[in-house]
Formats: sequence, C-alpha cells, structure tokens
Amino acid sequence: MKFTAYILDVLTNSVYPARITVGDGVFKEIVPIHVTEETKIDVEGLLLPGFIDSHIHIESSMLTPAQFAKIAVRHGTTSVVCDPHEIANVSGIKGIEFMIDNASTVPFNFYFSAPSCVPATSFETSGAVLDSSDIEFLLKKDEVVALGEMMNFPGVLNGDEEVIRKLELARMYNKPIDGHAPLLSGKELDKYMEQYIITDHECSNFSEAIEKKQKGMKIMVRDGSSAKNMEALFDFTERVNHWKNQASFGIIPTDVLERRIHSPIFDFIVSDDKHPNDLIYGHLNKSVKKAKELGVDIIKAIEMVTINPASHYKLDAGAIVTGAKADFIIIDNLDDFNIQKTYIAGECVFDGENVLFDAPEVQTENSMYVDKKTPEDFEVYCDGDECEVNVIKCYNGELLTKKTVATLKCCEGKVKPDIYQDVLKIAVVERYGGNKVTNAFIKGFGLKKGAIASSVAHDSHNIIVVGYDSKMMAEAVNTLIDNRGGFAVVSEDFGDSLSLPIAGLMSNEDAFDVAKKLDILHKMASALGCKLDSPFMTMAFMALLVIPSLKISDLGLFDGDSFEFIDVIKN
Amino acid sequence: MKFTAYILDVLTNSVYPARITVGDGVFKEIVPIHVTEETKIDVEGLLLPGFIDSHIHIESSMLTPAQFAKIAVRHGTTSVVCDPHEIANVSGIKGIEFMIDNASTVPFNFYFSAPSCVPATSFETSGAVLDSSDIEFLLKKDEVVALGEMMNFPGVLNGDEEVIRKLELARMYNKPIDGHAPLLSGKELDKYMEQYIITDHECSNFSEAIEKKQKGMKIMVRDGSSAKNMEALFDFTERVNHWKNQASFGIIPTDVLERRIHSPIFDFIVSDDKHPNDLIYGHLNKSVKKAKELGVDIIKAIEMVTINPASHYKLDAGAIVTGAKADFIIIDNLDDFNIQKTYIAGECVFDGENVLFDAPEVQTENSMYVDKKTPEDFEVYCDGDECEVNVIKCYNGELLTKKTVATLKCCEGKVKPDIYQDVLKIAVVERYGGNKVTNAFIKGFGLKKGAIASSVAHDSHNIIVVGYDSKMMAEAVNTLIDNRGGFAVVSEDFGDSLSLPIAGLMSNEDAFDVAKKLDILHKMASALGCKLDSPFMTMAFMALLVIPSLKISDLGLFDGDSFEFIDVIKN
Repeated sequence: MKFTAYILDVLTNSVYPARITVGDGVFKEIVPIHVTEETKIDVEGLLLPGFIDSHIHIESSMLTPAQFAKIAVRHGTTSVVCDPHEIANVSGIKGIEFMIDNASTVPFNFYFSAPSCVPATSFETSGAVLDSSDIEFLLKKDEVVALGEMMNFPGVLNGDEEVIRKLELARMYNKPIDGHAPLLSGKELDKYMEQYIITDHECSNFSEAIEKKQKGMKIMVRDGSSAKNMEALFDFTERVNHWKNQASFGIIPTDVLERRIHSPIFDFIVSDDKHPNDLIYGHLNKSVKKAKELGVDIIKAIEMVTINPASHYKLDAGAIVTGAKADFIIIDNLDDFNIQKTYIAGECVFDGENVLFDAPEVQTENSMYVDKKTPEDFEVYCDGDECEVNVIKCYNGELLTKKTVATLKCCEGKVKPDIYQDVLKIAVVERYGGNKVTNAFIKGFGLKKGAIASSVAHDSHNIIVVGYDSKMMAEAVNTLIDNRGGFAVVSEDFGDSLSLPIAGLMSNEDAFDVAKKLDILHKMASALGCKLDSPFMTMAFMALLVIPSLKISDLGLFDGDSFEFIDVIKN
Repeated sequence: MKFTAYILDVLTNSVYPARITVGDGVFKEIVPIHVTEETKIDVEGLLLPGFIDSHIHIESSMLTPAQFAKIAVRHGTTSVVCDPHEIANVSGIKGIEFMIDNASTVPFNFYFSAPSCVPATSFETSGAVLDSSDIEFLLKKDEVVALGEMMNFPGVLNGDEEVIRKLELARMYNKPIDGHAPLLSGKELDKYMEQYIITDHECSNFSEAIEKKQKGMKIMVRDGSSAKNMEALFDFTERVNHWKNQASFGIIPTDVLERRIHSPIFDFIVSDDKHPNDLIYGHLNKSVKKAKELGVDIIKAIEMVTINPASHYKLDAGAIVTGAKADFIIIDNLDDFNIQKTYIAGECVFDGENVLFDAPEVQTENSMYVDKKTPEDFEVYCDGDECEVNVIKCYNGELLTKKTVATLKCCEGKVKPDIYQDVLKIAVVERYGGNKVTNAFIKGFGLKKGAIASSVAHDSHNIIVVGYDSKMMAEAVNTLIDNRGGFAVVSEDFGDSLSLPIAGLMSNEDAFDVAKKLDILHKMASALGCKLDSPFMTMAFMALLVIPSLKISDLGLFDGDSFEFIDVIKN
C-alpha cells in the first residue's frame, strides 16, 4: 500500500506531508514531500498513531477482549495495556489466560499487566489467590508488560513479604510497576516509591498529582466511566495559580510561564474503567478532544495516548515511523476529531462505518459455585418489636459511603426494611462454593419494590443484591445463578436480566447490544423507584471494602474506618 | 543537611520552594513549602539537578578523568557518559580499564559506553582491536551503560558479521546503542535504524536532524570544541519556516505553533569533544545559556542536560527527587546562569571558588613503541630537478580537506617543500612497534620554519608531524617520544612541548596548566608562521581517513573519495 498523507508526528510535535509505503504489517518507507498546488494528497484528513489506553480493566466494559476491540477501533484505539484484575479475582491464572487467548483472536494490540493484588482484601471470599510464584509465571509471558497496580500500599509500607517479592520479580523481569495510591503523600509516598512504583492513576486533585509528579511518578489522568479526573488535573485556574505563584518569585520569565500553561505536565490519559454504555460513544478520542477543550495543547494531549505510553511500556506503537508496526488512524481534523479509519498492522479494521473483523463466540464455563437461594436466606432475625440497625448510606456516583443508623420494625422475628425511610435490604452471596450470605441494610437506592442483583461486585465479585422483599431478592439472585452471572431486575410486575456468563463479568454480545440491555435494566430499576443513575455500578462498589466508610462482604458488614466487621443490629 | 531552597523541577517544568533533607548521599526528604514574607530561604539562587553530558570523549580534554571531573564540577557538570574510544584505539581494554579506575578515584559520576569501532579503519595501524567478545566483556560492566557510537555505518548497512554481533550484544545486555551517522538519510538511515541505533550526535543541519527525529532517533545537539551544531539545530528562522509551512496547511492552530517555536524538539545537548582551553571557560552551563540566547525555552534546554539523558541511559540522576542521589548545583539565576556551588552525592565538591577534591597523580606506562627518528626518515625521494606531488589542502577549523597538486623542486634526490607555495612536509610515524613512516605534503599550515608534532591523531593516534625541514621534524617527533606523547613545537630558535604521557593522549596536570601550555604552543606555532587557530587539532584530523578528501596514515596517502591509497609523487 502506497499513499500520500499528512502525518501528525508526535516526535517533532508537527504535521508533515509524506509518501508512505506500508507492507508486511509495518511502515516500509516514509518520505516527506513538498506540497505544491498540483500535489495529489491521497488521504483526506490527518494520519495519527493509533491511540493507546495504558490502564484499563477490560472486564468493566462487560465485553470480551475481542468484543472490546471491535468497539475500541471505532474510536481510534489500537492498543491497550489491560489489567485483568477482575477476572483474576474470580478465576485466577485460568481467567487471565482466557483473556490473553481471546485477545489473540482479533487484530488489536492487547498488552497485559500481572494483577498484583489478588485477592484485594482478606475480608472477603474471592475465587482465587495469585501469589508471587503466579506473578512470576505471568511476568515471564511476552504479553505481560508490567506488574499491575499495586493497590496494597499498606503492604508496601509495612514490607509485607509477598508484596515485596512481587515487586522484586517485576524488577528482575525488567517490567515497570504500576501504582495505585489515592491520596498517599509525604514520607509514605516516598516509601511507596522506593519500591520503584512509577505510575499512579488515582490522583483526584491537582496538588496530589503535582506532588507525585515532582517526586518522579508518571501520572495517568483518568477519564473513565467511574473516575473522571481530567477537569481537576488539567484545570486551567489551578495551573495559572500554580505558575503565578512561581512568577511572583521572579525566577521564571513570564513568557515561559505563559507557554507552560498549555502544557499538561502529566503523562498519560487512561480510562481505567469504561462501561459499555459510555464506550459506544467514545474512548480516548473523546478524552483528547475534552483535554483540548480544557485548554491543553492538542498535540500534547495526543502524545499522552500515543508516544508517552508506548515509550513507557516499550510497545511497538505510538509513532508513525519507518519499521514500526503500521497502527494508525485517520481523523478529519484536530477540531472535530472524528475517527474516519483505523488500521492495525497495515490492515484497515474500521472503515468509518463498519468494523472489519469478527469476535469469536466464547464457550463459557460456569463460575457460579453457589446453591439456589430461598427468601429465608435474606432475612435478618431479631426479637422484639423494633431494633436499631447499622445502615450503609450510599450516594449517586460515589464509591464512598457513610455509616448511619435506623430504627426498623420487626415482625415474626424478622427485621423489616422501610421504604419510607428508604432503608432497604442488601446482601452479599458468596459464589465460590461456601454458600455464605451476609445481610445488612442500605439507604440511598430508593427502590419501592422488587430487587436488583449483580455478579459484578468489586473486587471479589460475589453476588450482591438490594431489594425490598426477600422473595424478590432470592429470585434476582437465582436468575443470576441461572444466567451464570450478570445483572437482574426483578419485581412482581416485570423484570429482565443481562447475562454475563463469562466469569460472571462479561457478555458474549457486542458493545451495542450490551449497552442497550443495560439501558433497559436501568429504566426498569428507575420504574421500581431507584434514584441512582447507575444502580448496578453503585451496588458493585458496596463490596469494595477499602473505600470507607461502611461496606459489605460475604463475611459481614465492614467498617472501613475501624477496619473491622461490625454487627448489623446495634447492641 | 537540611535547608530551604527554590528547586527548579525538570519533571513539572517549574520552580517551587521546599525544605530539603540530604543524607547518606541521597535526597532524604523534599517538602514543598509556602513562602511568606517571613519564610527564611537558606539558599540564595536556584537549585538545579547537576548537568549530564551524555556524549563526550574525555581524552579530547587531554585530562585524566579525575582532572576532567575537577574542571567539570566548576561548570555544574556532575555526570558524563563518556566513550573511551581514543584510548581504546591506543591500548584497548587496558586503556578503558584505566579510565574506569581513574574515574572511580573522584566524587563524580562517570558512565561509559563500550567503543564499538576500534580500530576505526583498517587503513591505518592502531594499538588495539576490540572484537565482539571484548565488547561483551565491557557490556557486562555496571559502569558501561551503552554501546558507543556506531561509526561503521557501511558495516551496519552491509551486515558485517562482527558489527551485527556487537549490536546484538548491546540488545542482549539491554544497553542502548549510540549512533554516529553524519548525513545518512532515506532508506540507508532506515536500515541503520533497524539495528536499534537510537541516538545521533552528528546532525549538522536542521533538515538532517528533523529527518532523524521524525524516524524516531533521539538527537544530541553538539556544542563542543570541534563541532558546534546548536546554531543550525536551534535556528529560529529554520523553525519558524518549518512551522509556517505547516501553518499554511491550516492543520495546526496558530497559537499552538507559536508556542512550539520555543520548544527545542531535540533531546540532548552534548559536547562530544571539549578541549582544555575551552573547558576552562565552561561546559554545558555555557551551552544552556547559549541555547536560551538562541530562543530555546530555558527549562527545556536544562531538560536536555538533565532528565532527558538520565531517562535515556537510566542514570540515577537528572532530577531533584526523594530517594535520588543528591547531585545538584546552585546557580544565581536563569539569566546570568553562574554556577555557585556543585554537590555530588550530597557532598559539596565546588564551593564557588575551589574544587574540594584532589585528582591522583597517575603512574604512566610508555605507549610509544617507536624508535627515535633521523632526518632521513622524513625525506621524499625523487630523481630529476622537479616533480609533481599530490598535496593535502587543509582549512582552518575544518576536518574536511581537498586534494590538490603542486610542483616542487628536487635537490640531491630529495623533494623540497616550498614555503612560498605554502607546501610543507607532513608525516605519520607509526607508534605501535612497526616503525613505519609515511611522508607527504600539505598546504594550509603556513609554517615558515621549524616543525610541529602531535601524538593525538584521530582515530589511531600515531605520531603526526608537519614541518619545513626534516631535521626539525625528526627533533619534534623525538621530543614526543621522550615525553611519551603530547605536542611539540620545534625550531632553531625556540621550542616547547606539552607532555601527554597517558597513552599519548592525556596529561597528568590540571585543566588550567594544560590550557596554559597549549596556549604557549599555539603562540609559538603562530610565531613560526602558522595561520591556523588550532594547529594541533587540525593536524590531529589529517589522519582521520573517513572524512574526505585527502588524508594520511602510517600506511600511505589516502584518497577518501576513491577510498584507496595513492602515490605522493604523481606519475
């Protein structure tokens, strides 16, 4: 293939016209040309390197890697560094190997990190444990380019033997270590970084990011479905104040400072988690455009999803240069930023309308090692007429919860939820063979009847269910068990479910179908009175014990402030 | 050590005030502070990371590594990546080991590259050969951080077995490969780069540098004693034209382009060769200041001698961050850019006036394996009254020569030089035991009498001598032999010499003494009629056969255009 086009060159921050020869999957030759009025330019628009998402959990898209690729190429993404942390919690090495195998069936660049923290907590039952020998097994693989986010920062700070061994192995295999250290600062951050943990994607405010960057970390700015940190980290006013403060020192000339304001300082833009109903509308293409709207130099923003991650993870990607794999995209212009075509290894995989490859149907194994439930499994028992209970208070779109207290009526020895106080029942059903159920109460969902259930519940992915009555809760859970995982909405009048039979996390369908079904479920939950925008996501984080204040696992109601289990019924 | 100072942070392109704790040679803690009118700032001026020269041949300073360190710290340099290519040509591995050992005697960061091309040519006798097994021996050393400049680009392009093996070894040991490919472009450059040769320091014009950069090379901008490429590569007009050309495409917004103009695009500033009489006045500090005068953003220029080379060669240097080796300098301000103090591993090594460490006296071994010469050794014999000879025409400050022809008188069978035509005698005396002498003629030196000789003669470093009469030439060469190398000026009336007893390349004295003696020799040469600014340097390059057109080695007069030896006397 030979053609002329304008190349956006992230190596020289410029655009130049060139005659390009592509063959054997690589850029064979790139010869800059001088453009005159007569010169024919074959490609309308602009050639860019394909985008790289350097930190994403594919499982959050609820799609198989192959289906993820199909939607990602529509948005100009050609490579991802993905951390299969979720499936690893469900099915360990076997799950990761499924991801790698499935990824290899499509023309897309999947790189992996070895999930460093499986299980994420010892306060919940997970499906698997990855010890340091498992990590070594993974680090030896060519597809694995990094040690995944080290969430266990207490383990790092306390010198936990297995944690330190995993970090040492990453250095031994010469693979960079990704960090995850929300709000860690000062001496603790110094100590964390002593272990060569070199990236962080958890910065939620400018000064946090600046501290980490000043200490030598590479900062991943998140623009995902759950976490959106671009406004905070690219904030123009914050930057102006930061530099003005310096200008007042009189040390840096004003013109240098003015130019500096448009420079993003930080290193990568990543999505971390991207849900199907967002993913159908855009990926990094949308983030780059948004960065520009926030005042970031457009080419600098593009560097953050091309050459920067490619250099860091040593990927054969990120720039349009002779000898490199011919991954590139064509966009209309830097303002509208529409993806017109996507090429991977020299082959067109998206022609502006259709994706030109198929994703294979996956034969799923059941990962729901759990018996069917009865309404009795979801009762909280208490003598007397009423009792005081500890209640999880959740908020729309937030991972954080608060601990509150409610007085509930008891009837025939069972504690009754109260829709007038918006205090519903919540339960976690262990799905890894132990059949444990923990029941508690939650405020914030707003359901007036029925129940909703999910087998996506970070990070151990047991079944989580919220509802008004025990019968509906049992029915919702049993629907999930029949479906081998997924989401379910159940009520006396109507109900539906999204089946996620792959490890209880991923569908076999494509992004559009999954998004559509998710949309229907959201509408049904809303019809049942639910006040949350993404009830399944909010529910999924109710089991994420590391985020305070009150959470729930299959082992009990967990107080994230005191880091211990507490009773549901207050004594 | 605890103090407050303004830090110039190359990671965030900014300046911030902080409380700094240094101990055990590293930055123990760095805590940003808020400055009020009452805050006491202990350090006047600005704290910067120490500078890193990422490509230098220490031998060109005519100083031992230890003495080089003593002058370099005065200018804020704390690290160098040096290629001991010159001493390797004289004494092989033993010479390199001397450099490493001597470097270790002083508090300064010497990193080395393994010289990839020893000997540089097969058309001259050198003192040593480094084959791929020698390279492997060197690459295993911790001090060796790269494979040195691959000058043998024909060898790369033709797939020479030993060359390819050396390149493979560098990759095997995970050490980057430095390039040296003047004017290489197009498909040949592509092929050269296929071997993972990733830097180039030979770019002498903007479009050459842009091509290499666009292809993915990191560009070292040279500001040395011999080669000065900053004006060409930082040229404001060139850049404006380059970007304007793009602006005319209408693809990149004008404000983005305007900011872009001050961005240097290229990666490092290096010196390559720095002679003692330049070195006493400055090193990278002078280059950064000059870059700023050329319109480059000052902090970007500083990045080119700090974080950029440190990242590339994975050095524990380049930024002021907790846990890093405490190499830093204090400058007065970004305009005057005077180095006030230099610290290495937390110790002050230059206090603004004195260097606070000593360089050891080196016990030298003789490396002049050559017998004393007689005037007869420097005669060109020819029958008849006159003859036509091929003459090297040299130019002030240039490595390039031209081939010219002169008619010379003969007397008693000997061809006579002619000061009226400025045609003098030149000879190369082999110093590695073979005792070969090649005689020829040269135009451009302007000597009216006497002779000058040098044991610095790139790259094989045989003895080279230029003069009017054979007696003086023999005396100059014999002076060098007595001195175990160096420079000599000899005439009937006066004469002097600079002794370079270490491999015939380096002195035991300090930079100021060597520069002073060199200055005296230059004045003497000038008094003998020499018209060149640096006659010894010009002479030293007359044996550098790879640079056209006519050069001389111990094996004969060499035509660099036809790449063959030719006769002195034209037939």
